[in-house]
Amino acid sequence: MKHIYHDDSLTLHTDLYQINMTETYWKDGIHNKRAVFELFFRKLPFGNGYAVFAGLEKVIQYIQGFRFSEEDLAYLKNEVGYEDDFLSYLKELRFTGTIRGMKEGELVFGNEAILRVDAPLGEAQLIETALLNIVNYQTLIATKASRIKQVVGDEVAMEFGTRRAQEMDAAIWGTRAAYLAGFEATSNVRAGKLFGIPVSGTHAHSMVQAYKDEYTAFHKYAEAHKDCVFLVDTYDTLRLGVPNAIKVAKELGDKINFIGIRLDSGDLAYLSKEARKMLDEAGFEKAKIFASSDLDEYTIINLKAQGAKIESWGIGTKLITAYDQAALGAVYKIVAIENEQGEMEDTIKISSNPDKVTTPGMKKIYRIINNQNNHAEGDYIAMEDEKLPERRLKMFHPTHTYINKVVTNYTAKELHEDIFVKGDLVYEIPCLEESREYLKQNLNALWPEYKRTMNPTDYPVDLSQKCWDNKMKNIEEVKEKVAEMQE
Amino acid sequence: MKHIYHDDSLTLHTDLYQINMTETYWKDGIHNKRAVFELFFRKLPFGNGYAVFAGLEKVIQYIQGFRFSEEDLAYLKNEVGYEDDFLSYLKELRFTGTIRGMKEGELVFGNEAILRVDAPLGEAQLIETALLNIVNYQTLIATKASRIKQVVGDEVAMEFGTRRAQEMDAAIWGTRAAYLAGFEATSNVRAGKLFGIPVSGTHAHSMVQAYKDEYTAFHKYAEAHKDCVFLVDTYDTLRLGVPNAIKVAKELGDKINFIGIRLDSGDLAYLSKEARKMLDEAGFEKAKIFASSDLDEYTIINLKAQGAKIESWGIGTKLITAYDQAALGAVYKIVAIENEQGEMEDTIKISSNPDKVTTPGMKKIYRIINNQNNHAEGDYIAMEDEKLPERRLKMFHPTHTYINKVVTNYTAKELHEDIFVKGDLVYEIPCLEESREYLKQNLNALWPEYKRTMNPTDYPVDLSQKCWDNKMKNIEEVKEKVAEMQE
Repeated sequence: MKHIYHDDSLTLHTDLYQINMTETYWKDGIHNKRAVFELFFRKLPFGNGYAVFAGLEKVIQYIQGFRFSEEDLAYLKNEVGYEDDFLSYLKELRFTGTIRGMKEGELVFGNEAILRVDAPLGEAQLIETALLNIVNYQTLIATKASRIKQVVGDEVAMEFGTRRAQEMDAAIWGTRAAYLAGFEATSNVRAGKLFGIPVSGTHAHSMVQAYKDEYTAFHKYAEAHKDCVFLVDTYDTLRLGVPNAIKVAKELGDKINFIGIRLDSGDLAYLSKEARKMLDEAGFEKAKIFASSDLDEYTIINLKAQGAKIESWGIGTKLITAYDQAALGAVYKIVAIENEQGEMEDTIKISSNPDKVTTPGMKKIYRIINNQNNHAEGDYIAMEDEKLPERRLKMFHPTHTYINKVVTNYTAKELHEDIFVKGDLVYEIPCLEESREYLKQNLNALWPEYKRTMNPTDYPVDLSQKCWDNKMKNIEEVKEKVAEMQE
Repeated sequence: MKHIYHDDSLTLHTDLYQINMTETYWKDGIHNKRAVFELFFRKLPFGNGYAVFAGLEKVIQYIQGFRFSEEDLAYLKNEVGYEDDFLSYLKELRFTGTIRGMKEGELVFGNEAILRVDAPLGEAQLIETALLNIVNYQTLIATKASRIKQVVGDEVAMEFGTRRAQEMDAAIWGTRAAYLAGFEATSNVRAGKLFGIPVSGTHAHSMVQAYKDEYTAFHKYAEAHKDCVFLVDTYDTLRLGVPNAIKVAKELGDKINFIGIRLDSGDLAYLSKEARKMLDEAGFEKAKIFASSDLDEYTIINLKAQGAKIESWGIGTKLITAYDQAALGAVYKIVAIENEQGEMEDTIKISSNPDKVTTPGMKKIYRIINNQNNHAEGDYIAMEDEKLPERRLKMFHPTHTYINKVVTNYTAKELHEDIFVKGDLVYEIPCLEESREYLKQNLNALWPEYKRTMNPTDYPVDLSQKCWDNKMKNIEEVKEKVAEMQE
């Protein structure tokens, strides 16, 4: 794995309160208590039926590089005012915990731990912000890209969004997430270099303007490059652009590979159909029509419904910024902590919103695969030490418990793997192509009803009886405490 | 200025087509022709009446670091397949052009060049993508933050969005943009270190959960830190959180600085009013109420209308992702190019959408300040060689020309400064505090009608008669060419 991002240190890429809390723990002597945090989101983005996990590779890089630099420590001392003793602790700090989590390309649903951090309290706290920052964005974009790819189908989807991305990291990591989710190429050359993603692109309006005359511009491009896709809308798509493209292609014949034309504005349905006719009449039946211009899954599904003759889709702004929902709301919640006897005790966060109440304790997540059809019946969250029944697994909805079913002939696939064990990276990082392939397999095991882009069926994410009982017990304890306080 | 972002090279952070176009120019021997590009957006974001330019500092860093690394060149050769001769040209390439542009903190409106790049064609082309990527995001966030700050007024606005930002660069550069636009602090410690922004934050729910007992948690925090803001909604805001905060504050008295409490969920209007009463009754009239929880200018204006007792606002997701409009659509268009006689010739891009037709030629932008009230009358775009009349400046709307006015007693402030001249940085980069102050002055010179967050009046951005005539002439020329092609 390449080291992509060099900074003096990313360890200060955290919220100040993480350091203040850690200082509290350290002064109180509990900073090395074992604590378990889960990283998860509650609600699927875009109204989609599933999300695609991305971000693990960068999380690993971040964890491996976790150490406060001299510059960091000087800043914390001089500008924020931390005391030397505490800074000495920070100076020596490395990540020594255990992280279990999903593989990139895993399908993930609401309230499932994507990552589980089991580490000394101070360390677990300090890494929260960066983990969320990375996973929230990359998972968001992988999910958006997967939605778009579902609609694009076997045609080509290309990521073209760098100029509109939210700064440079988003451009490259967003592109990586899109490729993982099934996109075929990117325009971003740096992403091509860093991640091995195929790069794509020929020319822009500026080249046509630089030559002023469009015919000359196409001709010059064709003289310099064998593979040609001409952008035809600088002045007038059907009256100038397409005829000029055809003229140059005819003149140069076998000297070039006339791949096709690109439309970047106007009525893409109409223009593509007219351009198709013109290309066919000129004998270029194999020339393809590329389109770009604020595309997303909604415009693509509509263009296809209108019979647009587009075979290659360049997707920019709407993908790289996840324009219709620009953030995934993943959170990082403590679920267990070591007590004074050295035993693990569960913790809970209560809310008046029932969806925001956390599920306490160390847990495992299984995907329940029906052995008869190899499709997923749902996911099942059980306590760490629980053993699943060999047959007859009862699955029920965690809030509306009357919704339940019994699965008999199944395989329970555990969704977490060890990533770090006591600070050591034990996970063999797959190459991007493997993660891409893994996602494809995962999508194949999901019924179409969960995959459609509009109004998908809710995929079941159920708690085991033990897990549910434990949650109820924890809620009761808090309620008793509230009652005591009021007496 | 610190070098914040170390990468092997950011020069490949561009779209592949920029390199392919440059190759075309190079093979044709026109890569060193002088070309002028303007970077501008067409439409103000968020329905706001103005935008705030941010991004220049990073643009400067990028331009200064512009050179293809050995790794870049190896990638381009082996993976993309460029020829050695062309790669030799790229290898030696540095930015040798002139960039004029606005200062950070300048108010900018639609169709005004924020930056103007006047450089050898190949160089100007290769830097397009990165410039747009940087300016689009940072300007978007500075504008969003300025809107929010207008509503927050003299109270405190803090940036809390790192965990939801679109990857790491967005978190830090977005925070910088927010601070430039008037925010007072950030939670991101790395941004604090890199940019000198004040950092803020005390503790999260996890600390309360780690101690299980909220009272103990507050007490432990207070033992470790003088300045205390207690987060009171882990279990039950009014029945547990606020009473526990008061209890600890009373017990510790002068030993701590009880700054206040933070609300992070629930009905912030109701809870803040009730908590205010409880704090006042306990004698803590000076303790402040902080709030966070998906805030933006809309929720804040509503909370204030409901009489919420909040004095400090922590703004996360909605700011750092510009959630309601996650991209600014700035473009980079060629407006003039050297012809074979070595003279500059104007270029135009036509579109069936009149707002998308570019304004040809090298131009200057002036802010027309009324000398009687020191407020801006509008902006005025004139040709480079034009001299403004000493009195009686006629200003008219560039598309609806019947909308016009005559300004008599005015000062024309030119909005562009030299940033790079023939490759050399000549601009003295102001510190962030200066840019922040500069924005404040600019906002003071803007009538309130342009500043309100809802339905602001359109600020005039007018063309000079000469500029307008030149545009019409260029349009006619293209139309003639289209007609010729059809004959």
